[in-house]
Amino acid sequence: MKILEKISQCRSEVDILKKRGYKIGLVPTMGYLHEGHLSLARLAKKECDAVFMTIFVNPAQFGPSEDLDKYPRNPERDALLAEKTGTDYIFKPAPDEIYKKDYGTYVEVEGLSDIMCGEHRPGHFKGVATIVLKLFNIICADRAYFGRKDYQQLAIIKKMVSDLDIDIEIIRCPTIREEGGLALSSRNKYLGPGERKNAAVIYENLKNVEKGVNAGERDPEKLRRKAIKDLKKNIYIKKIDYFDIRDAQNLKRMTEIDRSKDILVAAAAWAGKTRLIDNIVIDKKK
Amino acid sequence: MKILEKISQCRSEVDILKKRGYKIGLVPTMGYLHEGHLSLARLAKKECDAVFMTIFVNPAQFGPSEDLDKYPRNPERDALLAEKTGTDYIFKPAPDEIYKKDYGTYVEVEGLSDIMCGEHRPGHFKGVATIVLKLFNIICADRAYFGRKDYQQLAIIKKMVSDLDIDIEIIRCPTIREEGGLALSSRNKYLGPGERKNAAVIYENLKNVEKGVNAGERDPEKLRRKAIKDLKKNIYIKKIDYFDIRDAQNLKRMTEIDRSKDILVAAAAWAGKTRLIDNIVIDKKK
Repeated sequence: MKILEKISQCRSEVDILKKRGYKIGLVPTMGYLHEGHLSLARLAKKECDAVFMTIFVNPAQFGPSEDLDKYPRNPERDALLAEKTGTDYIFKPAPDEIYKKDYGTYVEVEGLSDIMCGEHRPGHFKGVATIVLKLFNIICADRAYFGRKDYQQLAIIKKMVSDLDIDIEIIRCPTIREEGGLALSSRNKYLGPGERKNAAVIYENLKNVEKGVNAGERDPEKLRRKAIKDLKKNIYIKKIDYFDIRDAQNLKRMTEIDRSKDILVAAAAWAGKTRLIDNIVIDKKK
Repeated sequence: MKILEKISQCRSEVDILKKRGYKIGLVPTMGYLHEGHLSLARLAKKECDAVFMTIFVNPAQFGPSEDLDKYPRNPERDALLAEKTGTDYIFKPAPDEIYKKDYGTYVEVEGLSDIMCGEHRPGHFKGVATIVLKLFNIICADRAYFGRKDYQQLAIIKKMVSDLDIDIEIIRCPTIREEGGLALSSRNKYLGPGERKNAAVIYENLKNVEKGVNAGERDPEKLRRKAIKDLKKNIYIKKIDYFDIRDAQNLKRMTEIDRSKDILVAAAAWAGKTRLIDNIVIDKKK
């Protein structure tokens, strides 16, 4: 496995791979790898001839009061874990390799970026879309792998790829969970033992909505209110940014449960001082 | 010469060319070709193995009160002229091939887009950057050719390419002028005979600034005021959007003439109901 820190190194390697006709897989991450990331890398290795993992804690997607500085990092452990998946290259640039002096170009995916997490993290998805586009331009992969845990991010990236005519296939991969149901996240490291145990209540309530829908409930507001009430009862959940039931395709809020569409149930809530997100999709009836 | 109207056709052709190891040149235009466009195509043909010219009057770069609908079009004549330059492909998509239903992704080059023409045409350069990025993604050229007449556009595209790590070389080509000095533009078609003759006064005043600088004048405000006064004297010039003296590199206004830097002298003014732009660069002293 090669570790690259410069854009020019990536370009040279990609040139060689392309000339050989290799199919390139890209796994963009912010590092501090967990089983979720590794499952993306393994799938990429299975489907492609060469796998690039990028590890970059992207300043442009953090707000001024967010956890950029304390975001967990462990490059040595990341390298060991990535290598075990068969990853061929790690690209881990320094921030000034990515954002040069006087940097000023940003991508906005309108409509999808100011709802849900975007409402609570202004500018976040602008930063996400921009870094992902840059990585696509640097690596020129055939396929890029993203986890469904960041569902809104995935929707925005897919929209960007379609709108900007980017020639890449976006592969959506399942959320990996702890035994209790908590979705894996690098930010879980912040959780105390009580918080960690109780954070599973988010997933429980997503699943409760699914149960309600399957039991015939058609009023999303009723399902939402019940979930929010239940979450608020848990003393470890300090704040709920949102708990939403939406059309999984266009992220529009559902005013009535429509089983002819895939339904996204998504939440962002704070366990102590840690902001967690999670979602499930209730597949449409065929 | 092949005429393509679909993105998928472009991709197929580009794939074949790339496999042959061809160097691809791209000449983005809005059609109604004049000698300026043709000079770009000829240079592209000289430097590359295959030349794509795109002809697309991009709605996203026109304001609501601007000339999108009446912008001159002549696809048959364009095809004849392009073919004579050796252009291999014309890509002339319909608007809905480029902007699909629910289109929503835009690129902003901050800092350079809200000054000069951007101040008078809000959103214009957002539309320009977005379409150019899309064309770069569709054609995957090695080199793209732009005229220096649209100096600010060129600066924005170069910044976007650098910021977004786009692997393409931007070639800046000289402004082509009528005998009297008027810069060629598809919009010159709008001009009446008196307007056309008198529009050359814009270029005259750009050159007068150069003369002033060469004669030792170091106060840009003095040079600007003199030019604006002179332009206002011409009864065919109905409005001056701006007449600016700026650092040609970063487009920052010069507060004092600095001969160690390339100096951009740029103007936008209305001859009758037609908005014209022009510029010259005074090379730095070596």
